Amino acid sequence: MTEHHIEVPALDPGGYTIHIGSDLVTSLLDRVSEQFPKSQPFIVTDKGLVDAGQLSRLQGDRNVGHFVITPAGEVSKTMQTVTAILESMEAASLGRDSVVVALGGGTVGDIAGFAAAIFKRGVPVVQVPTTLLAQADSALGGKTGVDSSLSKNAFGAFWHPAAVYIDVHTLETVNDRDYRAGLIESVKHAMIADADYFAYLESHLDAILRREYDVLSEVALKNCRIKGHVVQVDPTERNMRRILNYGHTIGHAVETASEFELLHGEAIAIGLVGAGLIEVELGFSDSTRLDRVRALLKRIGLPVTLPQSIRPDRLIDLIRRDKKAVDRWPRFVLIDNFGQIHKQGKEYALDVGKATIEVVLEHLYG
Amino acid sequence: MTEHHIEVPALDPGGYTIHIGSDLVTSLLDRVSEQFPKSQPFIVTDKGLVDAGQLSRLQGDRNVGHFVITPAGEVSKTMQTVTAILESMEAASLGRDSVVVALGGGTVGDIAGFAAAIFKRGVPVVQVPTTLLAQADSALGGKTGVDSSLSKNAFGAFWHPAAVYIDVHTLETVNDRDYRAGLIESVKHAMIADADYFAYLESHLDAILRREYDVLSEVALKNCRIKGHVVQVDPTERNMRRILNYGHTIGHAVETASEFELLHGEAIAIGLVGAGLIEVELGFSDSTRLDRVRALLKRIGLPVTLPQSIRPDRLIDLIRRDKKAVDRWPRFVLIDNFGQIHKQGKEYALDVGKATIEVVLEHLYG
Repeated sequence: MTEHHIEVPALDPGGYTIHIGSDLVTSLLDRVSEQFPKSQPFIVTDKGLVDAGQLSRLQGDRNVGHFVITPAGEVSKTMQTVTAILESMEAASLGRDSVVVALGGGTVGDIAGFAAAIFKRGVPVVQVPTTLLAQADSALGGKTGVDSSLSKNAFGAFWHPAAVYIDVHTLETVNDRDYRAGLIESVKHAMIADADYFAYLESHLDAILRREYDVLSEVALKNCRIKGHVVQVDPTERNMRRILNYGHTIGHAVETASEFELLHGEAIAIGLVGAGLIEVELGFSDSTRLDRVRALLKRIGLPVTLPQSIRPDRLIDLIRRDKKAVDRWPRFVLIDNFGQIHKQGKEYALDVGKATIEVVLEHLYG
Repeated sequence: MTEHHIEVPALDPGGYTIHIGSDLVTSLLDRVSEQFPKSQPFIVTDKGLVDAGQLSRLQGDRNVGHFVITPAGEVSKTMQTVTAILESMEAASLGRDSVVVALGGGTVGDIAGFAAAIFKRGVPVVQVPTTLLAQADSALGGKTGVDSSLSKNAFGAFWHPAAVYIDVHTLETVNDRDYRAGLIESVKHAMIADADYFAYLESHLDAILRREYDVLSEVALKNCRIKGHVVQVDPTERNMRRILNYGHTIGHAVETASEFELLHGEAIAIGLVGAGLIEVELGFSDSTRLDRVRALLKRIGLPVTLPQSIRPDRLIDLIRRDKKAVDRWPRFVLIDNFGQIHKQGKEYALDVGKATIEVVLEHLYG
């Protein structure tokens, strides 16, 4: 047998700028043309954003090729939708010199980013997140993908955006319940990374709920700094990035067990309280920190206890099947203080026995 | 407006080993397990390879999860096939800790490599090319993808293999016409990169046509060295990699114009003669070099003139629409001598006017 070795050189470091403001969408296509003077833009958005007038706001008097995901929402997050987008880009005679503009919430960003990643083996994507969750979380970090019939985000790619535009004006399209639930990733970011940010959320919550542009811009910036730092250190989720999973191990189980009666943000709110209860149980914290978390979540209007309709054995079963667990009981991300992850050696997540979780779930019924 | 910049760190350099021999397939799953002790293998192959007994040869007495592309060939190179593979991997409970083994020709490698690139945002693929074209070309270099209804390789990803196994024994499954056509990339490699290799092909052609294992192994190694070098220098096809396009600008047009009556290798044979005629026309060469090329191609059993059924205006039209051309008359890769690309400054391809090409096409009818 003969052997021949091929080196694959390192890819150059890259980077992208997040632009935050209150009226970016109207001038966005000009900015995209400036960044990609030789490329043709193609917009991917959804029915909800079109009805809310955001596509018109983006296009102005131009007529740019676009694809409208219909219906809006997770149900459209499939390979079929991605294929339809790719075919519609080809039908519009686009080639490798095109740039995808993803206007919408997390679902639109995931689908459009994935389409960009595989069109002609990859074209740039500009993310324009229009929900709090997408602005704080999913538009940053380069995770794209769609669901299969069996699991969420089953198929996809790591594909970092070429630019992100956060226009807090677009948040006006979000209904009250989604808006409140969307604040959860901001609360989580504050808890895992920045005690001052937690205090800021407490003192500015009324302005946030009134959707005041300057406060929303400040919140967006703080979120980008935190998420951005984590993504820089760990772009393909091998280690540190899992701190973003704080509150999500129990939260995801609650989300699934509620059969999606609870919004993602509502389920994660319960998950954050769950994480706090584990910390109290393990002696990482007395209950005053948890009281502050519960108080803030309540003011936002998010649940802090488990609905009686969800049974604990169902949750235990779902936690065991957590996708991050790889065939065993998952590990939990916990904090020592706001902004301080509890590390075990080099590990950002630690073993917490099933018995402890069972006790915590009992307390979580309130 | 506020701005925040996110760095995306360079990806570590990687690499992979190409193993060349005459009985690698039977022990291949053991080698894959050694390289990926914690991963579950999943085989993608096609109906032709199954009928030829190669899947059994690979599996031995194991029963490894697998997907058989049916029917074999370009017609199955679609998003639908990729989606079916992904769903079948999920149904087999595979996660991020799986490794795809692609057993087959270029079509299988392209489809399976693409499926690996997007399953759970990317799992490794081991390429096991079973045709001369795949062993010399497509299994190396990380290009994966599928066709759309409008164009070839429309959707895909750059996804380098984790290992390549070239088992020349598998070439026994290839029929005579495909085998002869498959030698074209070896001839092209010799022409663009290695005059000694061209002489080797001339002196060893009878042994190659008898499919003698040791000579085939040597040919495979020479191909890997050449293609591997180009891929190392230019992994995502920005510059040097286009020298691999030698003979392909006219060749692709001939392939399409023949409505796929001609095999890829047969059309490229005509394209290589076309490139030689351009070189004579531009004074880069007298006709002795071209005579050697024609003689070798004829001994292989490949066409060196255009069929009368193909009209020159149709070819001119197809050359204008060449996908590498981006909206203008394409540039041509040419050589000064065997192994010496004609460079223009830093460019590996140069402008050749339509009038010259029209003259060349006239000569190409023989």
